[in-house]
Amino acid sequence: MSFSEHFSLANVPYGIASTAKHPKGVATRIGDLVVFLADLGLDASKQVQDALSQPTLNALAAIGKDELRMLRKNIQTTLSDQSVVSKHGVPIENVHLHLPVQIGGFTDFSCSKEHLLNASAAVMGQASMPPAAPYLPIGYSGRPSSIVVSGTKITRPYGQFRDGDKIGFGPCRALDYELEVACIIGKATELGDRVAISDADEHVFGLVLLNDWSGFEMNPLGPMNGKSFGTSISPWVITLEALEPFATRPPTKDVPAQPYLLDHKEKSSYNIALKAEVLADGQTTTVCMAQLSWMYWTFRDLVAQQTINGCNLNTGDVLATGTVSGAGDDEHGCLLEMTKGGTVSWKTSDGQERTYLQDGDGVRMSGYAGDGVGFGECIGFISPARPF
Amino acid sequence: MSFSEHFSLANVPYGIASTAKHPKGVATRIGDLVVFLADLGLDASKQVQDALSQPTLNALAAIGKDELRMLRKNIQTTLSDQSVVSKHGVPIENVHLHLPVQIGGFTDFSCSKEHLLNASAAVMGQASMPPAAPYLPIGYSGRPSSIVVSGTKITRPYGQFRDGDKIGFGPCRALDYELEVACIIGKATELGDRVAISDADEHVFGLVLLNDWSGFEMNPLGPMNGKSFGTSISPWVITLEALEPFATRPPTKDVPAQPYLLDHKEKSSYNIALKAEVLADGQTTTVCMAQLSWMYWTFRDLVAQQTINGCNLNTGDVLATGTVSGAGDDEHGCLLEMTKGGTVSWKTSDGQERTYLQDGDGVRMSGYAGDGVGFGECIGFISPARPF
Repeated sequence: MSFSEHFSLANVPYGIASTAKHPKGVATRIGDLVVFLADLGLDASKQVQDALSQPTLNALAAIGKDELRMLRKNIQTTLSDQSVVSKHGVPIENVHLHLPVQIGGFTDFSCSKEHLLNASAAVMGQASMPPAAPYLPIGYSGRPSSIVVSGTKITRPYGQFRDGDKIGFGPCRALDYELEVACIIGKATELGDRVAISDADEHVFGLVLLNDWSGFEMNPLGPMNGKSFGTSISPWVITLEALEPFATRPPTKDVPAQPYLLDHKEKSSYNIALKAEVLADGQTTTVCMAQLSWMYWTFRDLVAQQTINGCNLNTGDVLATGTVSGAGDDEHGCLLEMTKGGTVSWKTSDGQERTYLQDGDGVRMSGYAGDGVGFGECIGFISPARPF
Repeated sequence: MSFSEHFSLANVPYGIASTAKHPKGVATRIGDLVVFLADLGLDASKQVQDALSQPTLNALAAIGKDELRMLRKNIQTTLSDQSVVSKHGVPIENVHLHLPVQIGGFTDFSCSKEHLLNASAAVMGQASMPPAAPYLPIGYSGRPSSIVVSGTKITRPYGQFRDGDKIGFGPCRALDYELEVACIIGKATELGDRVAISDADEHVFGLVLLNDWSGFEMNPLGPMNGKSFGTSISPWVITLEALEPFATRPPTKDVPAQPYLLDHKEKSSYNIALKAEVLADGQTTTVCMAQLSWMYWTFRDLVAQQTINGCNLNTGDVLATGTVSGAGDDEHGCLLEMTKGGTVSWKTSDGQERTYLQDGDGVRMSGYAGDGVGFGECIGFISPARPF
């Protein structure tokens, strides 16, 4: 699947690419062509020029938004000349895409009320909201170093788990995906600083799709070994500037927001249609269709929450939505929800009965805002557990 | 307090120091003198030489243990010549000590049964062990980027909290320390690799003291904003080689260990006497005396647990014990335990009644193994919350 239509000149995503001949550098994608930006001889500051030759997007992401908006226009103007695209474009199939940013910190929040209700029903037999959930975006610190780029194989993890009344040990039996979107932090802050919700967008470089692969139960301290074996993100960072035409209102809050979460921007969320598919034995089965705009908390809320206690933001930090789910049966952002904790099976498009993911299965996530602006895919396949 | 006696030639800790004249570099400490190792003209490989001039210990820590053992002997021989120490030693008060490593990942485990029992009693009114705790070292991913070096001020965080039946918002009212020890990872692993418990020591560069400053309640996903406002570590990394004479048996396990946690090394823990003091209004009050060897899980267990699911280790990762507590009233590693959730006050040495930490208070942690091998101190003072 090429997702060519996701990458019009209205998008201008940023990623890190390399080819057999070209070292790692900052690239954009137009249609099915990848363009290394340092090769375009753009009229830009020395800081921007240097950033375009780096092996991660961090230096670029750290640059102020005003300069990045100028760069975006500059790229759009340059690439509107088809001869430039023809000269510099490398077919996507000849390009290796890398993890776009070096990630210093990773927080996974829980922005979907539906996910909280469905997941608690699946785990505890009764839908309930955590007491804090209506008041603040609850979340946990994740493992930054096991975040990998789309396409990286995910090895089924070993670990301990409940097996009826006993403790089992072996390969995870409940391997799951979680359909998420994440923001990548641009401008950093110092320890002790807080970011006002009105300034949050200035600290967000852009968005990616994120698959928060999950296994095992959470222990009382939250997810640890059940998550840290791997997390996939899509290779192209879609900037807030590209997404601005798709801005929309988030749901109305159930309780009055505390001052630091009171957002005077009306359209503080985005219309992005998300899809998750399971690829099994050559068959593709759509398992979830959901909208980012259903999320109770916005990325602006997440930035304000992350920093209200003075926690510093690093350029390249990842703040994720948690599982994006809706209320419908085809709107479950993970198999825990869809199978009610592994107790109800579902059918692949060729009629196989499934609960959780099997070895060899793939999960493809995609997201599309509209008018030639999309995320492409975030894909990963499950390798068997390595023998112990 | 100089802690001079902690730093004999039997110690040879590693840290990152600078002075007005000397740029950041790898240093050791002998008595009250700091020696920049690159200045000694040691007979060592190019790799070691280069590592000694870096602004973090990461390059040094990544080097194999055989070469590091040679370096340690080399330094001990060189510094046994008092004239060399006199020539190169800089008084500790003239030196600036920096965060010793760049930290890619931080996991905080919960290795003390006593802490789990006392903390659950304080929070829930009844002592209980989490179901998984006898079977594996439970833990959570922490925020790597807000780890700071001893001496850095900690700002009281803002946030939401329960206030009787209501939700409060403001400066944290239950600011606490947690007395911990952490290992710093040396040799890294790839995503998907597992470290056998018998190989764990080869991946541990050394140990530091850690103060896991805490505030607010944990939400159902574990600690997030209640922890990410700051974590302090001591500046000197004490190598396992220096600690080897103090190796000791850990407690016998309550249940048979799973294969990956079955350790055939008998003396897999260390005798390290730990102390926490609160410094208030110029008065020092000892609030906890505890032993690392009481911990139910060892650092070898933590390395095996962290990697059993294939999670990668980065050089510079921090794996911490969680609060080190004992059963006695003077062995509570945090104020949550000591005050039974803030309901019982304690007295400073000049008779003030206290529960949690107040603005201006300091917390000093220290650790001593014996025979001139200790950790010095890990200290931090509380600054008032910044107005909202």
